[in-house]
Amino acid sequence: MQPWKRKLRMGMVGGGQGAFIGGVHRTAAALDGQIELVAGCFSRDPENTRQTGAQLYLDPARCYDSYEEMATAEAKLPADQRIDFVSVVTPNNSHFAIAQTFLKAGFHVVCEKPMTFNLEEADQLCQLVEQTNLVFALMHNYTGHPLVRHARNLFQNNEMGTVRKVVVEYLQDFLMVPHEKLGHKQVIWRVDPTQAGVGGTLGDVGTHCVNLLEYVTGDPITELCADKSTFLPDRVLDEDVNVLLRFASGGKGVLTISQVATGEENGLRLRVYGSEGAVLWGQEEPNKLDLLRYGQPRQTLTRGRGEFLSESASACTRIPAGHPEGYLEAFATIYCGITEAIRAHLDGQPLKTEQYNFPTVYDGRRGLQFITQAVESCAQGSIWMPMT
Amino acid sequence: MQPWKRKLRMGMVGGGQGAFIGGVHRTAAALDGQIELVAGCFSRDPENTRQTGAQLYLDPARCYDSYEEMATAEAKLPADQRIDFVSVVTPNNSHFAIAQTFLKAGFHVVCEKPMTFNLEEADQLCQLVEQTNLVFALMHNYTGHPLVRHARNLFQNNEMGTVRKVVVEYLQDFLMVPHEKLGHKQVIWRVDPTQAGVGGTLGDVGTHCVNLLEYVTGDPITELCADKSTFLPDRVLDEDVNVLLRFASGGKGVLTISQVATGEENGLRLRVYGSEGAVLWGQEEPNKLDLLRYGQPRQTLTRGRGEFLSESASACTRIPAGHPEGYLEAFATIYCGITEAIRAHLDGQPLKTEQYNFPTVYDGRRGLQFITQAVESCAQGSIWMPMT
Amino acid sequence: MQPWKRKLRMGMVGGGQGAFIGGVHRTAAALDGQIELVAGCFSRDPENTRQTGAQLYLDPARCYDSYEEMATAEAKLPADQRIDFVSVVTPNNSHFAIAQTFLKAGFHVVCEKPMTFNLEEADQLCQLVEQTNLVFALMHNYTGHPLVRHARNLFQNNEMGTVRKVVVEYLQDFLMVPHEKLGHKQVIWRVDPTQAGVGGTLGDVGTHCVNLLEYVTGDPITELCADKSTFLPDRVLDEDVNVLLRFASGGKGVLTISQVATGEENGLRLRVYGSEGAVLWGQEEPNKLDLLRYGQPRQTLTRGRGEFLSESASACTRIPAGHPEGYLEAFATIYCGITEAIRAHLDGQPLKTEQYNFPTVYDGRRGLQFITQAVESCAQGSIWMPMT
Amino acid sequence: MQPWKRKLRMGMVGGGQGAFIGGVHRTAAALDGQIELVAGCFSRDPENTRQTGAQLYLDPARCYDSYEEMATAEAKLPADQRIDFVSVVTPNNSHFAIAQTFLKAGFHVVCEKPMTFNLEEADQLCQLVEQTNLVFALMHNYTGHPLVRHARNLFQNNEMGTVRKVVVEYLQDFLMVPHEKLGHKQVIWRVDPTQAGVGGTLGDVGTHCVNLLEYVTGDPITELCADKSTFLPDRVLDEDVNVLLRFASGGKGVLTISQVATGEENGLRLRVYGSEGAVLWGQEEPNKLDLLRYGQPRQTLTRGRGEFLSESASACTRIPAGHPEGYLEAFATIYCGITEAIRAHLDGQPLKTEQYNFPTVYDGRRGLQFITQAVESCAQGSIWMPMT
Repeated sequence: MQPWKRKLRMGMVGGGQGAFIGGVHRTAAALDGQIELVAGCFSRDPENTRQTGAQLYLDPARCYDSYEEMATAEAKLPADQRIDFVSVVTPNNSHFAIAQTFLKAGFHVVCEKPMTFNLEEADQLCQLVEQTNLVFALMHNYTGHPLVRHARNLFQNNEMGTVRKVVVEYLQDFLMVPHEKLGHKQVIWRVDPTQAGVGGTLGDVGTHCVNLLEYVTGDPITELCADKSTFLPDRVLDEDVNVLLRFASGGKGVLTISQVATGEENGLRLRVYGSEGAVLWGQEEPNKLDLLRYGQPRQTLTRGRGEFLSESASACTRIPAGHPEGYLEAFATIYCGITEAIRAHLDGQPLKTEQYNFPTVYDGRRGLQFITQAVESCAQGSIWMPMT
Repeated sequence: MQPWKRKLRMGMVGGGQGAFIGGVHRTAAALDGQIELVAGCFSRDPENTRQTGAQLYLDPARCYDSYEEMATAEAKLPADQRIDFVSVVTPNNSHFAIAQTFLKAGFHVVCEKPMTFNLEEADQLCQLVEQTNLVFALMHNYTGHPLVRHARNLFQNNEMGTVRKVVVEYLQDFLMVPHEKLGHKQVIWRVDPTQAGVGGTLGDVGTHCVNLLEYVTGDPITELCADKSTFLPDRVLDEDVNVLLRFASGGKGVLTISQVATGEENGLRLRVYGSEGAVLWGQEEPNKLDLLRYGQPRQTLTRGRGEFLSESASACTRIPAGHPEGYLEAFATIYCGITEAIRAHLDGQPLKTEQYNFPTVYDGRRGLQFITQAVESCAQGSIWMPMT
Repeated sequence: MQPWKRKLRMGMVGGGQGAFIGGVHRTAAALDGQIELVAGCFSRDPENTRQTGAQLYLDPARCYDSYEEMATAEAKLPADQRIDFVSVVTPNNSHFAIAQTFLKAGFHVVCEKPMTFNLEEADQLCQLVEQTNLVFALMHNYTGHPLVRHARNLFQNNEMGTVRKVVVEYLQDFLMVPHEKLGHKQVIWRVDPTQAGVGGTLGDVGTHCVNLLEYVTGDPITELCADKSTFLPDRVLDEDVNVLLRFASGGKGVLTISQVATGEENGLRLRVYGSEGAVLWGQEEPNKLDLLRYGQPRQTLTRGRGEFLSESASACTRIPAGHPEGYLEAFATIYCGITEAIRAHLDGQPLKTEQYNFPTVYDGRRGLQFITQAVESCAQGSIWMPMT
Repeated sequence: MQPWKRKLRMGMVGGGQGAFIGGVHRTAAALDGQIELVAGCFSRDPENTRQTGAQLYLDPARCYDSYEEMATAEAKLPADQRIDFVSVVTPNNSHFAIAQTFLKAGFHVVCEKPMTFNLEEADQLCQLVEQTNLVFALMHNYTGHPLVRHARNLFQNNEMGTVRKVVVEYLQDFLMVPHEKLGHKQVIWRVDPTQAGVGGTLGDVGTHCVNLLEYVTGDPITELCADKSTFLPDRVLDEDVNVLLRFASGGKGVLTISQVATGEENGLRLRVYGSEGAVLWGQEEPNKLDLLRYGQPRQTLTRGRGEFLSESASACTRIPAGHPEGYLEAFATIYCGITEAIRAHLDGQPLKTEQYNFPTVYDGRRGLQFITQAVESCAQGSIWMPMT
């Protein structure tokens, strides 16, 4: 690749004081020294934006009171100053409007998941991205882990055979207590269907499961049958869901998620049993991947071991084996894929998203489809709903 | 307890050369020095029985050509010689007839699971046990593990609150290859519906899951919704099943089982998340139980630690903490409970099965109900079926 | 092998009420159905012996008041009644006298470790065993684990190359509190140099380390340099010892043992790094063996997997992979080796101990040599002492 | 703390193309958005420096041909442009000269370990730092892990009692093959005593062990007794060392390190058994800390759990529990402590290093003392050498 003369310039919407994921995006985007944050509208509260910007050593002139103003003002800046892309890290119900605004203003967009408030918005966003021909990336960070990429590679190369059984789970106890009644900012919107959409846990962690498993296996879910629950009083959205899955290959699976699983921290775990082998990976210990084969000893593959890992896994590792990488590095790896795509676009190359390694607007739509169909399956007494 | 003057005398039906579980019953029954094997009909092939008996140093006169002959002959022996009970370790389709024969001849019975060929036989056996007032024990060995008993105790004492989520799994790769075509005796009958019944994996490992989870939680399954699969050609019974569960408490769960999960050995694992805490246990590492509580560090309880384990857990441990116990010891613990009950019966005490700690004919019926309803749920396209 | 007409007949010295290891020997010896306990002198207190014998359903006539009486009386019984061997499970200081008595009376002997009170007794016992040509087995039970035998096999076959580094540890907290002041029978003699000998922890757990590592590597310790500590008031024997090791191969090692390591249960763990590979095994999870090779993924070998384990490992496994075996099974495996040797002797075959798989009188002497040299190294300020 | 108007400006000596640790310093320093790299002399080869600088988007005018030039030129820049500090990431033998040059030019210094080529240089550097009153930080990154800080806190608060036993190990297979003969840049100087000093593995990983254990326990090593080995032909420095330790508290320990331990990646593990409790931590899974107490279940504390972790541990965590942090974050945390100290200095506050949390010049001297005394102990046949 040709050498680059400059870092990409990033803007952010959301992520002000009191937020969580915005800071993660900032750190992850900057990690590899290829992106610098230069502008933002971090909150609907201008004072919050101003203070956040000051802490980030931003030019106050580029800390905007509204995202609309930001899009307009940035678009008017000279090409060598204005942002290249914006990262949207607000609650679900505003993703679509913000993304739309920036896309229409000519900016590439990175967006938190779930992508939109509902499936209709997701469809519109797909159209808009196609029309603008800009980079749109959805942040499913877990696919940035080297060993997840290696697992995908094993299935792509058919080393694992066809899928027979998938067990995917994402268990937390994040919603065990009614934080929303205690003013916990990140919980308030998540349990409010007017902000989060029809899915609670389904959107917050369920979409990660779907993205992760389909990314690894390349074997799409064709049908699902779901049963959801809400345990805490006054909550209306799902806190816990169990789902039967069927795959295009004929394989079957279970997806089980919860945000009221006492004592679980961030238990995203994937196991896929194929006809020729099985892979087991969990994000809490992401530096290892267990590999099972019939009649052979269990193997534990570790990150950073180019001797036996695929090129796709080696390409996104920063430090040697045995020195643990974690959440931020995987997140940063998604930004690396985005960076490559935006630079190609800046170089005038035709945008072929499939060449780059980050989740797209179609992955975002897939997540909304999952939420929608799971909720509908439950509404009808756990009937099978199509995911095709 | 009053001292005992003698060991109990055990007979066995099944368990000849080439069998697996019969030997486990013999070793487990003898482990605590309270039971001695004195008679048997180990095979339909008298020569197998004769050789098996010789290897076990049995009196050839008490190695019988048929179980009917055995029941008759033993019943005629003097009270101080004849067997006290029989252990039935044959394929599923013969359990009922054999158990019936021995119960009618006045003998206590220990039986392998699943208890009978179908639910009708299970109902009849319940009646027969009630009529004879004899001890009938079903071998669900995993409930003999001390830490399973401790987990049960935690729920009984309400230390875990009400059940919110159960994740139970039993994954093996025992049926990964068509062993039945290669003459593997233990596989041939398991994949044959005329010998195994309507459930394959459902009966072989699924019933253990149901028994284990209901034993631990005390919270019965009220409904299930199942999806079963068969992957190998020429197989007709289920090899892999996923089931949504609902519990009397309002909790939910998933049960996922397979005998074609590549690389899995004997992966029975139970996780129960209650409103006040969670327990995690797996039979491959049975000497530890993980205990989670909201806002507290994870605890790993180890077997043999009377300082913090319940009396029920301490009572069935033989060796100090750190010295691993395993499969045989848990199996033996079930026999301890049976021994106590039979001795109480011999002492003329009224039989109150609930005082003793072993699975009963009703647990056996529960297993058949699970198999039957899961198969029916699948037949109707994964509808909810009652388990009440 | 020719079929056997009868079980071996076992006697026991020690192991009365209040003891621990005697019961383990009884259970382990009986586990495979080849040995029956028929006589014993379980305590210096005849009443204890009588009660213990009754609980074990023994003939009261063969529950003896003294071991001398037992040896004499058993020797006078007809050949088809008298014991074949005796298991000695008393405190260290009486091992020699008891073993000598029974050997001289013509009985094979199984003895707990450390073998004798001091090195001089060990030397005498070696001579006596050579003179009598009887089976003498020392109970180092941990070498009975199938995966320990597989590890040994890997070194024997030179698959691991030459030893570079050994890390062996045995950590407990058994002596954390002054149990001896609270009447704890098993502790009282262990902390008393007139009963235990010059080594405390060195004898109790250190000898297991030496036996295990030399068994696995086949590479004898040639020198050691030790530093021992005693932390609790009024204790005189070592509670914690660290030792530098040098091996015949040129490899090096550390041995670190403690009985005051807070929170450790029975942490015997061995790691051997050879020039071609490394093995890691711990007795608290004995059903797995980690195998490392340069540039390759870590492998976890599990017990019971004949597909990839050596014959020596498969030969001593009773149940399939995934069904955990533990302490008792390994202990029983040592008794299997002993049984084979005694039967060969009964068959009139010349005794070639090296054909059978159990620790011998020379292993016992090796343990005493270790204790003696480690204590001497400490006495001289941690100088190197020979182990050749 | 008062808000800051700008990031600190960092320079670097070493870390050009082909190097490893320089890139880690750059990423770690930048991670929290408080430091920007503005100048460097990345190699003795000016072309390497030029290319490295270009990849880092640096001003070519501040990419210097020699570190002497860099110190001089930067010192002449206006106060609002010149670097605040320099990070020295060259081989050991040049650390002292470079650090001296920058300290004398008035710059704060961050230096890789081992700090100097020998103990004499270390003594001189201590004096120089005292004279200049500038910030000097040594990079022992592992003390930046939140759970290491929590472990230290437990000992500081006397919750673990007095130290009885320390087992610290650092095992790698980094030097398993003669990489130095194959042109591996990072290995060539490490195995060359004219560049590395008298210690090989002792300096490269041994010093981390000493720093980590003394940081956690606060209990200094008072004596050591060592045995070192070299296995590969043509190597002269130690590849593998075992050391007996004695502590000021009366506790004892073993330190075992290797860079030829087949299959080990970066196995730094610390276990400390105190009279009241024990802590177990390993850097390959740094997000958990096992805590043992006598008679209680094992606890596993996880990073990010402010409910039960000390303030010192919570203060250096960036993301919630369950989202793994790793090597880079801990490294960055050391830079956070350095940043605080430099800012205080810039604010004109008297420098009190002990207020800040990073390893100092005295930790560096301690490392050299360890190397020196361990080598001397070996030279004299493993005698005890003082560490006071």
